[in-house]
Formats: sequence, structure tokens, C-alpha cells
Amino acid sequence: MSSTAHTLIEAVPNFSEGRRADVVDAIAAAIQAPGVLLLDRTSDADHNRSVLTVAGPPQAVVEGLFRAVATAAQRINLFEQRGAHPRLGATDVVPLVPLRNITLAECAALAATLGRRIGEELGLPVYLYEAAATRPDRRNLADVRRGEFEALVKEIGCPERAPDFGPAWVGPAGAVIVGARPFLVAFNIYLRTGDISVAKAIARAVRERNGGLPGVKALGLLVGGQAQVSLNLVDYTRTPLHVAVGAVTQLAQAHGVDVDRGELIGLLPEEVVLQTVAHCLKLPHLDRRSIIENALADFRAV
Amino acid sequence: MSSTAHTLIEAVPNFSEGRRADVVDAIAAAIQAPGVLLLDRTSDADHNRSVLTVAGPPQAVVEGLFRAVATAAQRINLFEQRGAHPRLGATDVVPLVPLRNITLAECAALAATLGRRIGEELGLPVYLYEAAATRPDRRNLADVRRGEFEALVKEIGCPERAPDFGPAWVGPAGAVIVGARPFLVAFNIYLRTGDISVAKAIARAVRERNGGLPGVKALGLLVGGQAQVSLNLVDYTRTPLHVAVGAVTQLAQAHGVDVDRGELIGLLPEEVVLQTVAHCLKLPHLDRRSIIENALADFRAV
Repeated sequence: MSSTAHTLIEAVPNFSEGRRADVVDAIAAAIQAPGVLLLDRTSDADHNRSVLTVAGPPQAVVEGLFRAVATAAQRINLFEQRGAHPRLGATDVVPLVPLRNITLAECAALAATLGRRIGEELGLPVYLYEAAATRPDRRNLADVRRGEFEALVKEIGCPERAPDFGPAWVGPAGAVIVGARPFLVAFNIYLRTGDISVAKAIARAVRERNGGLPGVKALGLLVGGQAQVSLNLVDYTRTPLHVAVGAVTQLAQAHGVDVDRGELIGLLPEEVVLQTVAHCLKLPHLDRRSIIENALADFRAV
Repeated sequence: MSSTAHTLIEAVPNFSEGRRADVVDAIAAAIQAPGVLLLDRTSDADHNRSVLTVAGPPQAVVEGLFRAVATAAQRINLFEQRGAHPRLGATDVVPLVPLRNITLAECAALAATLGRRIGEELGLPVYLYEAAATRPDRRNLADVRRGEFEALVKEIGCPERAPDFGPAWVGPAGAVIVGARPFLVAFNIYLRTGDISVAKAIARAVRERNGGLPGVKALGLLVGGQAQVSLNLVDYTRTPLHVAVGAVTQLAQAHGVDVDRGELIGLLPEEVVLQTVAHCLKLPHLDRRSIIENALADFRAV
């Protein structure tokens, strides 16, 4: 099998529409340029946001993303859009992720190419973030999105908010944040309470920025009347998913609140699955070859 | 890929040697007839037992098993062998397991063919068990192994202990138990105590036979001076592994004893891995396609 010779990237674009199925359908159709595999599609009506996960050869994925950004810009009006999740534009954020035979730096270069094309051909302001950032104060997504769409409309004329590509002017499609980052695990934890202050307090306690767990970003939200801690793990080798979930569970108990359920957004790397099983079953280690389907995959190569 | 067209079985033969590496090496070499893949090899000095896991096309696996049984019979003397694990022979038990494009009944027929050959060509007494059993009182492995090698030496002349194949006479290689069963998860749990009575009490409480968990077999053992609950899950759809481990952990706590660590013997089906992760992360369900390596496998087929 020559599969390992292929270069593959993942992209996890977030669109500010989680209620109108026809709009999300149109975006999902647009993103599937030849060679692009749609791996996952998650919409949330309260967040009013959809997250698509795609993978494929770099040029195919970049083409699909461009088409999806164009479709979202035509169908989503930020002057009317409201939801629980912060956002800057119709296509809010487009992270490119190295999967196979490609570096983070090469993904950052692809992000800049895509950003320039969105700015020039679609006339949208574009900000580069994380590994693709052109300025240190734009590495962090939350900094770029500060004040959301509504603040950007007023502030885009200020030098510190000048876009990397496209016009210094905000229309109904808002701005697009494009960048590159390592693989990220996105996981929500619903609490058995409608008190958002509990979720916010737990998010504060676990996020790295406030002295919490390494590589953990967290938000406290209210979703469908239920408090939710929304986690992003940017380095699961430093803080495994089960450790972050365990910490949230313990902090919730300290607030007298039970965890209701978890929710995976997008995909899990196999390594996280193996870490979790090893922890849950008190195994020192679990090898991927200990799973019979993986061991049997050898027969396919015969 | 035409892999799904292949017929595959697994076999998990248990040999009563876990100390002399050269003997286990010879058995492992013998079992690898052309087409046989050795998936796992676990030896335990206290049990004085080794478990090999192999897979492949049925005829290849049966040939490898026959060679391994012959080698074990030459190298292991049950009149001298001692260990924590009960046993009837040098090759103690040989379960055949359907993996792909084969039924349990077809595996039972293969077991009978292998058993006849061991009886006729190696001159060893052979008992068929589980799905291959010729009598209801031989379905259960523990019944067939009752009193172990030492009792069989005296009792093999009795009609109720007459072997299915081979002589009604026991030599230094003992008897071989051959059969077919569905896929089984073998998992040991070490307790932080040297008191075997705790392990035995927990095993009694969780095993189905004593009114415990459906599809769970359990033994309390002392391994390296440490109490161990040894679990066999014969139907993980009725009692998932994490439920059995959770029950053992709770019962240990009720005895004032902590669980030290788990130990997997052989392999885990992917379904058990997904069940465990879903439980640990409080997800209602985890789909195999939510693991990025599985989703990416689609690219290999392109």
C-alpha cells in the first residue's frame, strides 16, 4: 500500500450557522471539491454554529475551503446572526492541520495562500492566526476575535485591527480568521445545572491561561438552558483528554453539581483513545496492536 | 481490497509453561505455519503458563496448532510442572474463535478435526469443550479440568472421563482440551493486598455462575505474592469490560483494598475499546469513524 506516500491535511472550518439546514447543506456541498473527504459535520442550534471536518491532499482541501467560504459569505448575514458562540464572520475560523507528510510551517504557508485568495477574490477582511500569524498579538484566536463582529465593525479602521488581506471594511459576511495549528481535541461537558457561573468558574480553573492545565483552553457557556464547559486541548500529550474531563468532573462536584454528559466535536486521534482506555482500565499502557482490528489489518496487506 | 473475502479464525492456545523461555520460543516457532500470524504472546511465571494468540485461514491455523501441541508434548512434563493456574496438560486448552466469514459451528467442526488428529497422531487424550462439546457436562471448561492433571491420572479410566479422542491413559504431557467459542476478553486485575481470600471473594461475587454479572467468569489467584482477580468475559455485549472492572473495583473498596493495575491478556475487540472510551468520557456513544485513523483509512482504498 502506498498510502503513506500521500500528503494529507485536515481542516476544521467553523461557520456561524447552526440552525438553517439548507445553508449548512450548501456549505457542506461546496467544500467537497474533488479529493476532499468530509469526515464529520456537527451543527449546534444554540451556538448557531457548524463545524465541518475535512481531510485530503493540501491543494484539494484549500480549493474546497475557498468554495465553502464563498458560499457562507453569500448565505450568512452577521448583522442578523445571533448565537451562544463568539464569532467574527460567516466563516469564523479556518484552521489547517498537518496530518501526514507535511509540517505545521507548510500548513501555515497554505493558510497564507488561502487567506490572500479570500481577501482578493471574495473581498473579505482576513486575519492570519496561530502558526500563520504575522504578529505576536494575533497568535491567539480569542485575541483576534475580541469584541466579536460587532466590535470589529467599529474598530477595523484602527491600525491594530488592520487585516492581513482584503479590505479594512466589514460587510454582512464579517471577517475570516485563517491559520494553522497542531491537531486539536474539541470536547464539551454538559453540567446538570442551568447556572452558567458554575461553567465559567470551572473553565477559568482548568484553562492554561489562568494557571490551569497545560495546553487546555476552556469556555463556560449556556447551551439549551444547560451549563456547558467547552474544552479545546491543543496538546493532548501534556494534558490527556481523560485528565481534563476528570478535572472538570471534580471541580463540578466541588460546586455540588454533577456532570451530565460529554460531547465530542470532530474527531479523536487514536492515541487519545488508547490513553483513555489505559486510564479507565488501569493499564500502564495500551498498544494499538492490542486491538484486534488493527492487528488484523496486516492481513489486508497480504 | 479483497480482504473481506478471506476466511479467518483466531486461536488462543494456553500452554503450561511460563518460566523456560526456550520452551515457549520453540512452541511459538512451531505454531507459525505458513499463513499463521502470531498476534500476541504472554507468559506468566507464577501461573507457569503462556498464552499465544494467532490468526489466519482455518487450515493454516489448525496446522500450526497441531505442530505447537506436538512441541509442547515433547518439552513439558506435567508430573513436574507446578503453577498458580489450573491445568490438565502441556497444551492445556485450545479454543478456536470465528473472526471473519466463518461460523461458530464451523469452528467447532474444525476443533473436532484437530482433536482427532492430536489423539491419533500424538497419542494424547483429547476432550472437546464449549461449542465443540460432545456431552453437555463438557461444555464448561472448568468442569472438564476438574481436579486438574493429578485427578485425571487416576480417573481417566472412569466412563465419565473417557476422552473424545486418543487413549484413556495419561502420560507426562497430560490431556488436551480443544473447542470453539465466541471471542473472549481476558483481563486480570491486581489488588494491593497479598490476601488471596479477598480476590476469591470478589471473583465469587462477580462470576455469572454464582449469580454475578452475565457472561463473566472469574478466578481469585495469588500471583507474585499479590492477589489477582482473573476475568474472562464471554459476552462483552451483555457485560462490558469497564462494567466488570468497575464492579471489581467497588467490591475491592468494600473490602478496604485498592486496585493496583489491570492487565490485558491477548487482544481487545475495537467495540470494547469504543464502549470503554464512551463510558470514561460520559459519551452516549462513540463511533469507530470518530477516530481519525479509521476515517483516514478511506484514503487507502482510493
